[in-house]
Amino acid sequence: MNINISKIAKMARVSTATVSRVINNPEKVSAKTRERVESVISKLGYVPNQQARSLRSQQTKMIAIIVPHSADYLFTYPYFSIFLRETSLELSRLGYHLILTTDEPHNSVIDTYRVFTDKRLVDGFVVLDLKNEDERVDFLKLRNIPFVAVGRNEKDKDISFVDTDNEGGAYLAGKHLARKGCSHVLFINGPADQSVSLWRERGFQKAAQEMNFTFLGRNGDFVEKSGFEITKKHLGQFDGIFAASDLMAIGALKALREEGVSLPVVGFDDIPISSDVSPSLTTIHQPIDEVGRRAAINLIRLISEDHTETTILPVELIVRESSEVKR
Amino acid sequence: MNINISKIAKMARVSTATVSRVINNPEKVSAKTRERVESVISKLGYVPNQQARSLRSQQTKMIAIIVPHSADYLFTYPYFSIFLRETSLELSRLGYHLILTTDEPHNSVIDTYRVFTDKRLVDGFVVLDLKNEDERVDFLKLRNIPFVAVGRNEKDKDISFVDTDNEGGAYLAGKHLARKGCSHVLFINGPADQSVSLWRERGFQKAAQEMNFTFLGRNGDFVEKSGFEITKKHLGQFDGIFAASDLMAIGALKALREEGVSLPVVGFDDIPISSDVSPSLTTIHQPIDEVGRRAAINLIRLISEDHTETTILPVELIVRESSEVKR
Repeated sequence: MNINISKIAKMARVSTATVSRVINNPEKVSAKTRERVESVISKLGYVPNQQARSLRSQQTKMIAIIVPHSADYLFTYPYFSIFLRETSLELSRLGYHLILTTDEPHNSVIDTYRVFTDKRLVDGFVVLDLKNEDERVDFLKLRNIPFVAVGRNEKDKDISFVDTDNEGGAYLAGKHLARKGCSHVLFINGPADQSVSLWRERGFQKAAQEMNFTFLGRNGDFVEKSGFEITKKHLGQFDGIFAASDLMAIGALKALREEGVSLPVVGFDDIPISSDVSPSLTTIHQPIDEVGRRAAINLIRLISEDHTETTILPVELIVRESSEVKR
Repeated sequence: MNINISKIAKMARVSTATVSRVINNPEKVSAKTRERVESVISKLGYVPNQQARSLRSQQTKMIAIIVPHSADYLFTYPYFSIFLRETSLELSRLGYHLILTTDEPHNSVIDTYRVFTDKRLVDGFVVLDLKNEDERVDFLKLRNIPFVAVGRNEKDKDISFVDTDNEGGAYLAGKHLARKGCSHVLFINGPADQSVSLWRERGFQKAAQEMNFTFLGRNGDFVEKSGFEITKKHLGQFDGIFAASDLMAIGALKALREEGVSLPVVGFDDIPISSDVSPSLTTIHQPIDEVGRRAAINLIRLISEDHTETTILPVELIVRESSEVKR
């Protein structure tokens, strides 16, 4: 398809100079016009060429992560502390500087990306919690700004990413629960719009077919409270639990304890406290620190060599007390 | 003293236009020239007037905190998690956006401030861990950029700050140890160049005079290891310990346990784990969350009303197990 600036200009009812400005100096265009032009570009799938990118390039040696959560979540959810620490240290080794922010108080997910991009503050972004349909990816592709995603989806197969084998991890969890004698499992997955949830559902589904058990799938939000509440709500309907985060698994165990019920529970992540809680947590270990490092490495390869790198890191079943109960 | 741009220009051997650029458009001046002009301005004590500031002002609604530590420290030291979470939430309520970074991999403390300032990225800064002589304060004053300090020193009495009553807290700790029968105390203070250490030394000194005990003062770096090592090194020379952070107190208690010694220990901060460790920690509670909120509030008052606000928050002795041992 031969898409050019004239065609975009015509469809967006602006001059070709305006289209060029939206691509190269978006801060000089009114928000309204910019959005109209961007939506046309998005529809046509036009991506400014490499020359356009290098024309724009003024390296700042800064990388941004806009954490798609509140500051409260950022500083209390252990996954992020580990991930961000490692990404920051690795970027530092590579001569880059990480700047961090949350997406509040802006209303639209894209607003903060727009501010950083318009100011040409950073050379690239790490996009956390990739969604199945991710408007951050659409925006960064449109602006031709280097980024690496943490996670992978079906739609954006051409981007740099780092992920763990979520499908394999959920499969291991399912097989382990089946071996413990579970025949109808409560599967507390993450949010439905996150790509990680899709992979884990696939893996769990595969184990269920192979091992001949059924499961009830529900969506939590990765924190303890949702694991607790979903478990309470469905009590009596299952004989084992697979939770897509250790925090949700800990919430599930609290709910079971309150009800005086003992059932095998498997978590996901292997955050440090999972071995300290009682019962200690059987979980799928994912190398969060290595995910953080690879995100930095893959992004800098993209920036400096224009090389798209994709990494899928292995996971591992860690058997501890929570799955070894007598039912 | 009537200092004007001509005088600065003459002393720095540049044109008045260059001096003006250094103040208003520093990104347009070579680093070498800029540093020469800034050093002259710094020597003369010239501060660009309010008009100059408003001429420059293009509000971004973003605030930066350049954490003067590695990412590793940032994500493992509980004080920062609590402080930054509250600052971020309060800024968000006030319509501002917090961006966070560490000061690595830049070599000079000022480099990162310079990058953020030259790009006019933010409307102001929160300066953490104020020092007795603080070049970050000199730089921000020189550039006439709003900031609030966490801590206060003798030199910069005219700045917006938020602090806790560190002198009063150390005094309370000293009195408590004296009442527990301690007559020569090991005082593990923070780094000597941080203003907080000076205030705490004063308060502890005052308690020592009033209560007639002696103390051995040493400087740690607030983390567990330094408390452990300083305690080990001076074993046998003291009959009680005051550590200027809970983490150093926890390190001190580990060292004592290894040696089979039981002595009263008092910490500082009252971070969440201080009540969970065994023995639970007698400590000086400081309202870290409120310090975080007030930092945001005082900074935004300075930005929006040009009002310099100073806040000193009260502290409190919390008696738990670690000071109640039989010696």
